[in-house]
Amino acid sequence: MHATLLHGPRDIRLEQVPDAELLEPTDAIVKVVAACVCGSDLWPYRGVKETTEPTRIGHELVGIVEEVGSAVRGVRPGQFVIAPFVYSDGDCVHCRNKIHTSCVNGGVFGAGKARSGRPVDGCQAEYVTIPQADGTLVGLDETPDDRLVPSLLTLSDVMATGHHAAVSARVVAGSTVAVVGDGAVGLSGVLAARRLGAERIVAFSRHADRQALAREFGATDVVETRGRDGAKELVELLGGIGADAVLECVGTEESMAQALAATRPGGMVGYVGVPHGEDGLPLQRMFGKNVGVAGGVAPARAYIPELLTDVLDGTIDPGRVFDREFALADVADAYTAMDERTAIKSLLRP
Amino acid sequence: MHATLLHGPRDIRLEQVPDAELLEPTDAIVKVVAACVCGSDLWPYRGVKETTEPTRIGHELVGIVEEVGSAVRGVRPGQFVIAPFVYSDGDCVHCRNKIHTSCVNGGVFGAGKARSGRPVDGCQAEYVTIPQADGTLVGLDETPDDRLVPSLLTLSDVMATGHHAAVSARVVAGSTVAVVGDGAVGLSGVLAARRLGAERIVAFSRHADRQALAREFGATDVVETRGRDGAKELVELLGGIGADAVLECVGTEESMAQALAATRPGGMVGYVGVPHGEDGLPLQRMFGKNVGVAGGVAPARAYIPELLTDVLDGTIDPGRVFDREFALADVADAYTAMDERTAIKSLLRP
Repeated sequence: MHATLLHGPRDIRLEQVPDAELLEPTDAIVKVVAACVCGSDLWPYRGVKETTEPTRIGHELVGIVEEVGSAVRGVRPGQFVIAPFVYSDGDCVHCRNKIHTSCVNGGVFGAGKARSGRPVDGCQAEYVTIPQADGTLVGLDETPDDRLVPSLLTLSDVMATGHHAAVSARVVAGSTVAVVGDGAVGLSGVLAARRLGAERIVAFSRHADRQALAREFGATDVVETRGRDGAKELVELLGGIGADAVLECVGTEESMAQALAATRPGGMVGYVGVPHGEDGLPLQRMFGKNVGVAGGVAPARAYIPELLTDVLDGTIDPGRVFDREFALADVADAYTAMDERTAIKSLLRP
Repeated sequence: MHATLLHGPRDIRLEQVPDAELLEPTDAIVKVVAACVCGSDLWPYRGVKETTEPTRIGHELVGIVEEVGSAVRGVRPGQFVIAPFVYSDGDCVHCRNKIHTSCVNGGVFGAGKARSGRPVDGCQAEYVTIPQADGTLVGLDETPDDRLVPSLLTLSDVMATGHHAAVSARVVAGSTVAVVGDGAVGLSGVLAARRLGAERIVAFSRHADRQALAREFGATDVVETRGRDGAKELVELLGGIGADAVLECVGTEESMAQALAATRPGGMVGYVGVPHGEDGLPLQRMFGKNVGVAGGVAPARAYIPELLTDVLDGTIDPGRVFDREFALADVADAYTAMDERTAIKSLLRP
């Protein structure tokens, strides 16, 4: 079979690898229908995060179950499934608390090895071995129409992550929301905020195509200015108050500073951008304004069922974030497109 | 009249000062029935926060309205009132959002001067001029029994602040809660958590008298170890999980690190200790665990009405945090008692 390996900065290759195997009775093998490139894949791709040996990459997929281990009960061969970017057993205390990302038997796809030492596949591949299949996979009753595949694929990560930002920022019906970051996650955050009933949604974006998609997803206003000046512009736009809820979907010190400055006293920042700054949060400034910060790595598995319902009935169409599609063989081009920002998000078809 | 002034490190004096005056039509003058010393008063008292000129101090009081300005409608001379530690107009956008501490016309008692330049009294005095009296004061229908005075006085700050920690940490019925800090605020946090229905409440404390009061207020367990080791002990006590909600009621880097380490994945830290550390919050560690942080300077004015009901009907007795009482003339002794930890909290009677 073929799988994608990252060899070093901007050196990404589809290679022949040994066939996917059932390593434990709780594993399943899934034939990938669609995978994609994540903004977070660009950190190692760009060398910001070092790659010491060729590493399987990719953590988003939808596919068809090919084979299941002897202990798997929840999915069956031939079934269409969604895999969240973190696998989890589904019944440890953290999974029961709906924080599957902290599962005691969990891990992230494409991270090389699990804590137990077993290898873990990346999802930009033809086949993927899924650990903890019963806890991890969400199976559909019927194989969906192919046009739904992109939206279903977003439930693996970006739509679930945007939703996590919105939930963490306590977006409720009537909220005023600002979204920092116009990548696929930020745009999904706009859609999630609208879905939760936000009344006013301001997207920070300086790219016409992303602004257009943000508006389509429910943004009522766009602010082009970045950083603290952008936050000031937002506060003016909102009558001098700041937003009730701000979704931080980038992960830099600047974006977090912008998010904090854009939040009204008593409001919340929901953050899902993987933090790449050196400094911590400015607690003293937060203290005076009563601005809280919550979020983190999104427990996508917890959110898939409710979001899935809305995708299947057409209420939301988050797959619109995929503006480029590539054959898996052209995975290097898919990365280049995202790296050079000619794509918001690249979909891959084996 | 007499008022307390801080002259420099550990130099606190009751002095003759000009009588309290109505400076604006929205002011009221209150004759102090009881005031007290706050843990946060100890920062300037100890010289950690510099005092450049003799400064009125104290920000907690209950009293009887003596005189009101021409624009005051909500309270009348002779009425028993509670003043939160921050005055506020009650109808700006932030007050309507219940974050009175961000009031556009607000300020804190004992801070010297308001943003407008007008002088603002401290509450450790015989009389206090209250700015924005209608927005600030909560008047009682009847003058309460004197035995209720200590509990009513806690609504000015510590009980409201403990409640803010609990609300910010999202304590709900059935929550498992840990409280960092066994001062008056931490103990009030224990009581607030019990009042909100927490099932298990672990108090961090190494002082027998405070442990006893914590248990009386609802603590089910006590952990004596501090810092990260204390957090580890807590996690073991809770079966390896950490608390759903942790109340950080100290304000040092160590106490915040302890609070974060004591929180389960997906849990919240509610923080009300005035931050005195240099560093910010460790965002990357919070990200992986999905631990959020909310809180800040407590909008006591927002909470007084609901807490007042419970004090008046005897449901809660937060005044138990006052274990020493002093005449206002002995204010220096009241500070010494708290500085040397021979008192949890010192009450002052003019």
